[in-house]
Amino acid sequence: MARPVIGFLTDFGSDSAAAICRGVILSIVRDAQIVDIDHGVRKFAIGDGAFLLWAALPWLPVGTHLGVVDPGVGTERRPIALQVRRGDVLVGPDNGLLMPAAERLGGIVEARLLENTELMHRERSSTFHGRDVFSPVVGHLAGGVPFAEVGPDVPIDSLVGHAFPTPVRGEGSLDVEVLYVDSFGNVRLSAVPADLGPGERFERERFRIGRAALPFAKTFGEVAQGEPLLYEDSNGMLAIGVNQGSAAERLVLAAGDRVRIAREQ
Amino acid sequence: MARPVIGFLTDFGSDSAAAICRGVILSIVRDAQIVDIDHGVRKFAIGDGAFLLWAALPWLPVGTHLGVVDPGVGTERRPIALQVRRGDVLVGPDNGLLMPAAERLGGIVEARLLENTELMHRERSSTFHGRDVFSPVVGHLAGGVPFAEVGPDVPIDSLVGHAFPTPVRGEGSLDVEVLYVDSFGNVRLSAVPADLGPGERFERERFRIGRAALPFAKTFGEVAQGEPLLYEDSNGMLAIGVNQGSAAERLVLAAGDRVRIAREQ
Amino acid sequence: MARPVIGFLTDFGSDSAAAICRGVILSIVRDAQIVDIDHGVRKFAIGDGAFLLWAALPWLPVGTHLGVVDPGVGTERRPIALQVRRGDVLVGPDNGLLMPAAERLGGIVEARLLENTELMHRERSSTFHGRDVFSPVVGHLAGGVPFAEVGPDVPIDSLVGHAFPTPVRGEGSLDVEVLYVDSFGNVRLSAVPADLGPGERFERERFRIGRAALPFAKTFGEVAQGEPLLYEDSNGMLAIGVNQGSAAERLVLAAGDRVRIAREQ
Repeated sequence: MARPVIGFLTDFGSDSAAAICRGVILSIVRDAQIVDIDHGVRKFAIGDGAFLLWAALPWLPVGTHLGVVDPGVGTERRPIALQVRRGDVLVGPDNGLLMPAAERLGGIVEARLLENTELMHRERSSTFHGRDVFSPVVGHLAGGVPFAEVGPDVPIDSLVGHAFPTPVRGEGSLDVEVLYVDSFGNVRLSAVPADLGPGERFERERFRIGRAALPFAKTFGEVAQGEPLLYEDSNGMLAIGVNQGSAAERLVLAAGDRVRIAREQ
Repeated sequence: MARPVIGFLTDFGSDSAAAICRGVILSIVRDAQIVDIDHGVRKFAIGDGAFLLWAALPWLPVGTHLGVVDPGVGTERRPIALQVRRGDVLVGPDNGLLMPAAERLGGIVEARLLENTELMHRERSSTFHGRDVFSPVVGHLAGGVPFAEVGPDVPIDSLVGHAFPTPVRGEGSLDVEVLYVDSFGNVRLSAVPADLGPGERFERERFRIGRAALPFAKTFGEVAQGEPLLYEDSNGMLAIGVNQGSAAERLVLAAGDRVRIAREQ
Repeated sequence: MARPVIGFLTDFGSDSAAAICRGVILSIVRDAQIVDIDHGVRKFAIGDGAFLLWAALPWLPVGTHLGVVDPGVGTERRPIALQVRRGDVLVGPDNGLLMPAAERLGGIVEARLLENTELMHRERSSTFHGRDVFSPVVGHLAGGVPFAEVGPDVPIDSLVGHAFPTPVRGEGSLDVEVLYVDSFGNVRLSAVPADLGPGERFERERFRIGRAALPFAKTFGEVAQGEPLLYEDSNGMLAIGVNQGSAAERLVLAAGDRVRIAREQ
């Protein structure tokens, strides 16, 4: 039988916290294949974590995945597990972190509250549910414990949502939001290229974002080094890049910012 | 048979050095399950590394663990292996790095000097014992070589110690030391909450650290965003946090600093 | 049968991109042992990546290794696979990244262009060949697809080269280049200690680099804390270090810089 795959994302950074979770999981399922997605997520940035899980999970084998970006640890926010249509289970806090990925994996089939303390660590700290609640539950699920045993059913529409905002088309412009700035400084936007208009048109046009003028191009190397471009990113979404540079620095943009893309006259 | 687990911590940072050690270990035991604890330990910070091993190893399966924070590489400092009561073997430099974890895993049963060059790389560089001495010994131990074969017995009381300092109780105050600042900026202290006095009292009181006034709280979300708190961390120790912020920045504290916690009048 | 080993280096940094590649590989060969070499390579720094692969791959078990530092992604630069004498296959962009490592693993036996789209993702983005081209090819090769199936033969002398520059000996001086600055700030040079002259001489002499005077020493601890030294690094090459400090900061040196090492009079 194939080793169970466990995708694992946190904002724990350089520390032993992610390793402690790995240890807890491996103590329960010794042959787990833990795939670290990222532990350098910006602290407390639920949106960044949500984007990264959404981008990564479709490319991982079906598994039991764990996401922990959890500013509300120890408060009333609920610990949850989501069964999705592709067959994966997603475990983490009910703060929106898991929602875009769940949607992209076919949508939630069943949501459950983590309440079965027999699947958790005996003593639960109030600041490290990654270790005491989430990792042991993930280990048990990956090891074969049935989904329904983690706790009671939760109405799907009661979950804290997190949807990518819809772009707004204006007269010769498109208003979008920055979903994420990747490690190269590429600015990932809440729109697809088709939102700019029919492809045969926008691929020959130039656009303006603030004071920057930029073409739509297929890849970074099509513009001069240091120059910006609009492009279709590897998720099929619209993005702003700079050839061998950082678009986020050049255009002074960060996750959550609103951006107006205007057609150049 | 279960794959042998190898916890692995260094201050090597972003570089190929940790991968080289992994390669050496896997060349000896191809089915090793290497669990990276942290490779972003502050350079040469033996105390930080000691704290992280102490925090992490109890949560890993019993194994052969490797710690390398080694400013004295190539000098007279001894390379050692420690058998601990829980069943693990800890390998690394004799500079205190392994000592708190060894203590927490039940204490040292037997200590040995790494002297058997047949278990090491033929040529030994003077700057990368991680690759030439420690990793091959770890690989051989994990692969089944008996502990006694690594080299001669070393008196346990001859090992370089590293103990967490004892807190000092004063008149309405507690003097402690910063053991570690974690990646969130939480300040981990050398005391347990009970050192503040009986629980039924301190949980209702407020404290002062320098110019900051802070309550004792169960978790970050119990204080307003950006506000400091004293709390019991996930190791059962006393810590200073800031809700969605960095206590180390806010109170200007670093590992090794002395801190006076005063009861507010 | 032993699990196939896959060494993996990128400049993807903290992001989900490396995890996506891991997911693609594991979806094809579920029992792959992916050994992360480094994903914190300086962005677009082909020379740094080349140095790190050269330093690491000899210590990894024979495998199918993937290197992605790829500023020309989506342009005319070719995607290639190199069979080397030791038995490994190296996969990545034809921009020099793989060449020093290939040389150190015995030299290239056969080079092929990645053209067989049946071994790739159906739709290929123009900005993420790591996911769509390189990882699936690596997965298939590691899973047993014969090397010749990836695409047509490429003349070895048509590959983009990347050789470490030859040191130039002058009257009492040696001109070298900085190959790489490691995470400790040690400055790795394009020369071996013997280039300084016969060992029985240079090991007693002092040298000058800019305004710094430094001895040749065996290891960091032989000079006072904060003091610089010349030493033979763990690759047998010449390097500049500072005991518990950063030589790159102290001597203001970066990869690619030229350095004159002068014998002190």
